This record gives sequence, C-alpha cells and structure tokens, in this order.
Amino acid sequence: MSQIPNFKDINEAAERINPYAHRTPVLQSSWFNDQTGAELLFKCENFQKVGAFKFRGACNAIMKLPERAGKKGIITHSSGNHAQAVALAARMNGYKATIVMPKNSPSVKVNAVREYGAEIVFCENTIESREETAQNIIQKTGAAFIHPYNHPDVIAGQGTSAKELLEEIPDLDMIIAPVGGGGLMSGTLLSAKAINPEIKVYGAEPELADDAWRSLKSGKIEPVLRTDTIADGLRTSLGSLTFQIIQTHIDDIVTVSEASIIRDMRNVWERMKIIIEPSCAVPVSALMDAKISVQGKKVGIILTGGNVDLNQLPWS
Amino acid sequence: MSQIPNFKDINEAAERINPYAHRTPVLQSSWFNDQTGAELLFKCENFQKVGAFKFRGACNAIMKLPERAGKKGIITHSSGNHAQAVALAARMNGYKATIVMPKNSPSVKVNAVREYGAEIVFCENTIESREETAQNIIQKTGAAFIHPYNHPDVIAGQGTSAKELLEEIPDLDMIIAPVGGGGLMSGTLLSAKAINPEIKVYGAEPELADDAWRSLKSGKIEPVLRTDTIADGLRTSLGSLTFQIIQTHIDDIVTVSEASIIRDMRNVWERMKIIIEPSCAVPVSALMDAKISVQGKKVGIILTGGNVDLNQLPWS
Repeated sequence: MSQIPNFKDINEAAERINPYAHRTPVLQSSWFNDQTGAELLFKCENFQKVGAFKFRGACNAIMKLPERAGKKGIITHSSGNHAQAVALAARMNGYKATIVMPKNSPSVKVNAVREYGAEIVFCENTIESREETAQNIIQKTGAAFIHPYNHPDVIAGQGTSAKELLEEIPDLDMIIAPVGGGGLMSGTLLSAKAINPEIKVYGAEPELADDAWRSLKSGKIEPVLRTDTIADGLRTSLGSLTFQIIQTHIDDIVTVSEASIIRDMRNVWERMKIIIEPSCAVPVSALMDAKISVQGKKVGIILTGGNVDLNQLPWS
Repeated sequence: MSQIPNFKDINEAAERINPYAHRTPVLQSSWFNDQTGAELLFKCENFQKVGAFKFRGACNAIMKLPERAGKKGIITHSSGNHAQAVALAARMNGYKATIVMPKNSPSVKVNAVREYGAEIVFCENTIESREETAQNIIQKTGAAFIHPYNHPDVIAGQGTSAKELLEEIPDLDMIIAPVGGGGLMSGTLLSAKAINPEIKVYGAEPELADDAWRSLKSGKIEPVLRTDTIADGLRTSLGSLTFQIIQTHIDDIVTVSEASIIRDMRNVWERMKIIIEPSCAVPVSALMDAKISVQGKKVGIILTGGNVDLNQLPWS
C-alpha cells in the first residue's frame, strides 16, 4: 500500500469509475475573469456524486478490491465527504460499509451517510479514538480500510478530475486546487504533470491550516496545529504518500485568510449560482487576493464539493 | 406591437442573441428522478447572463430596435430580473437605460441594476406610479419602452430557451415552466409546439398567485389578487399577448403551495448544488407533489433564475 501511483493507474481509474462517476462540467464566470485578469475554468466537483470529488477515489479503491476482500466489508473513519463517498461506492458494489464517525459530527452528515446505507459507529472526538475504533472492527471482521487520502487507489481516483479538465481544456497554463490531506492535490499533480510537463500546479490552504505549506518548507510532514478554519475539508495533515508526491511535483503552496474564504464562497454563490463548500473558496481566494500571478493566464480551478449545512451559512 | 411572434421570429431571436447570451447547460439529478419516477432535464437559466432567462427577451428586443430609436434611450419599470436584463442589454448596445423601480425594491436588486450602468428613477410602490413615472420619461425623451413580457420581441427571445433545450434533448415528452406575466411560457409554447406538435407543455403557479390558472378557466385575463407569494418572479398578471398565446396552446396549468415551493427550492440547492430563486421551485413542486402525471416520462423543466438575497433565505 505504499507505492506511488502513476499516470497509467489514473487512466485505469478513469476507465473503472467512468460508468459510475459524473463527468463534471467546467464552468466559467465573466465576473471572476474581470476580477482576476485571467481566464478561469472551474471544474465542478460539487456536482459529483455525493457532492464532492471524494467519490472518485473511494469508488476506484473499492472497485479495485478483489470481491473476496470486499465481501468482508468496507470501513473508514471520516466525518466528512469521504464517509458518504465510501458509503455510496460500497453500496454500488454490493458491499457492507461501516463508517466510524466522531460523536460531534453534524447530524446532516450523519444522515447523509445513513441514507447511503452504511452502518455508523460513533467514537470519541479524537483522531486516536477514530483509529482505535476502526482497528477494533477490522480485527473482528477483516473489513478493508479505505484511507481518505493516503492510499494509492484513492489518489489515482482523485487524479481523474484533473485528467478530465485537461481533456476538455488542453491549453491550461495552470491548475490550482486546495490541499487538505493531499489526496486531491497528489492526484492532480500526477495527472497534470504527466499530460503536460510545462503546466504549473499550485496548492492553496487556509492560513489557519497551513500544514502543507510548512511541510514544504521544512521538508517533513508538519501537523495541522488548529482545526478551526471554516474550510472543514482542509483540517487534516498530509500523509506519507501525499507528502512525497506534493514535495516532488508541486510548484508552490499559498495561504489565504478566513475572511477571504468566506467572501469568495459568497462571491461564487452569488455570481456563479452554484453552491460550494468553504474549502472550494480557498483557491478562488488565492487568485482574488493575487497570491499567485495569473494575469492573462488560462487557469483551471478544482471546486472540490458542495456539501454545506444551509441552516448555518458563514455570513448569517 | 400587438402581433404574436412565430417560430421564425424565435429562430431569428436565437441568431441575434447567441453571441451575447449563454447557451445554458441542462442538468440532471438522480435524486429527483427517483422521487418523481420520471427523467428530468433541468434547463439552467439561473446560469444565464444577469442570472435569469430575462436577458434573452430584453437582449432580443433591444438589439432589434433601429439604432435611431435606441439612441433615444431604453426604459422599463421592474423591480426584478427584467430590470437587470434591460440594463445590461442596453449597455451592450451602447444605449442609455432608465429603470423605474419602486421605492421598496430590495437594495440588492437596486445595486445590481446600478452595476450594469443604468439610471434608476424611484417611484411609489404601486403599478400605477410605475407606469406614470415611465410614461413621463418617455414623453420627455422618446425612450423605447421594453415591456417585461407583453412584447413580441421579448416573447420571441424567451422562446430561445425551450428551443435550445429541445435541440439538446429532442425526445422530451413534456416541458414545464412557471407562469408569471407569461412571457417565458408564451415563448416556450411557441417554440416547443412548433418543434414538436405532440409535446405537452404545462404551466405551474403558486396557489397564492393563480391568476393564469383562473384566466384559463374564465376565458379572460384575471388579475393577481395578492402579491405575497415567496415566488417573487410570479406576482404579475398576464398581458393581452401572453394570455392569447397561453390560451391557444397550453395543455394545463397547475398550482402549488408556498410550503412546497420552499421545500423544493431547498431540495434543489441541497441535491443539485445550484442556486435557484423561489420561482424556479414552482414547476419542481408540481412534479414532486404529483400535480402532473410524469411516471416514465422525459420532462424538461425551465429553471428561470438564481437571484436570491443570501441574507434572507426562506428557511432561516
């Protein structure tokens, strides 16, 4: 489980998941083009199954399991989009899924996982409790653990989004995506640099969760120090695989403030009429705040998901 | 100005506006398909310029004006999407636009109109004051009045949305759209029935603004009796032209409750990750509440717009 996927793995992942995942649309916005002086191409993973790119990786990893392994069940721990992705992908394959979720998970997320037919096991609100609870179940059942990002088949699956984007818009100068655990960024790097070695790929992080930026500077995996950024999908630290891929290939990582994230989440809602979660706004803010020079460039942005509690909007 | 447009007018409108209007995407949702037992195709005019189908009609009407007339200025009265549509289409043509808006218009709408460069003249909050204020300006300036719906070029412009939808999905059994003043519905009927005489076209209205339904029954234009439906785009009565077209061609009109409109507006936001305004949810509710039988049918739904005040959501 420790090898780094290559572009062949991503192509195979695409073939594998294409009948099940949406080929998400690429949208444009003249308002954002005017604001940034660039031509922006938004790859809308908020329209993906379960409302997030996470379905790509989970679907690829679960479909790639030998049936014998899948029959023992699928397990993961997550309070976010990966939980729903694993639940749906397992159900599509006729496998039983168990999702370990912290007690304090928002009920909207718990209900969504339940709706996809997974069993939920609650644990304490620490990463240790999550891992221990999952390990206990694995020891009893032999269920296959699908890590949310530090897993080659998950990374290869996430890489299919950038592959689709570049198939549709081959002459992009640059792609920018958010960095949480690094699964999406790793897949994006492997896809984009294989398709076009000249392309620039940038990561964007909240200032409050700048662990990947710090890891890039120090040369080792730095942990997330606080988990209060509004970009709830980006509160995780890098893994061994994702750090290695990011360190090797990424052009740079930039960080943005909480205020910018909320402002640009709202700008996207109002100007593009699409619902994005706060994590998606992070790369948008990187451009709006001119953290990366994009004047006259053709820039792909991966919008990662659209799962938001409509009763708790950050501006209300 | 009283003649009814034909399909040739709609084709000419399409050619005229195509370089300026977006060809809006058609989206699907497996959740809504499951709920209704039909295959639903959502034509997303919320992604249109100014965030609403209204740009099509305004653009067509203004582009069709002789330059000599346009140079005298463009005028309309509207507190809604038509105001923005006229403001933008006038600016694109290098004409000066004056928009008469009631004093109580939400500031978000006033600002949007101003952003498109139009002059705003405020009036009292009655339809009489709107019309009188506009008439006074027309007498002084000779500006061309672009009625929001009872205008053949506006109707022909609105018909381009259904035309695009049927070009993309030719085998639709049915199209459903909301009915306000009837401009969109008239254009939709003229397009759809010309392209496929077998297709069914239904209108949907809020119970609180069921004037078109009552007009259809009584055989004459019945006024809207109250203006408190949340579907703010549908608070207007039919015009002479739109009533004639609707009476001749429509298959039926159904009505839905306020609670259903709010529920399905939220369902679309949550399930499809797109922002629609309340008026769009009216036809969706007609299907969700089984007001029209759609089992096994392929049904086009025109989503009319996405202009919503994010500080005042109906469920908060």
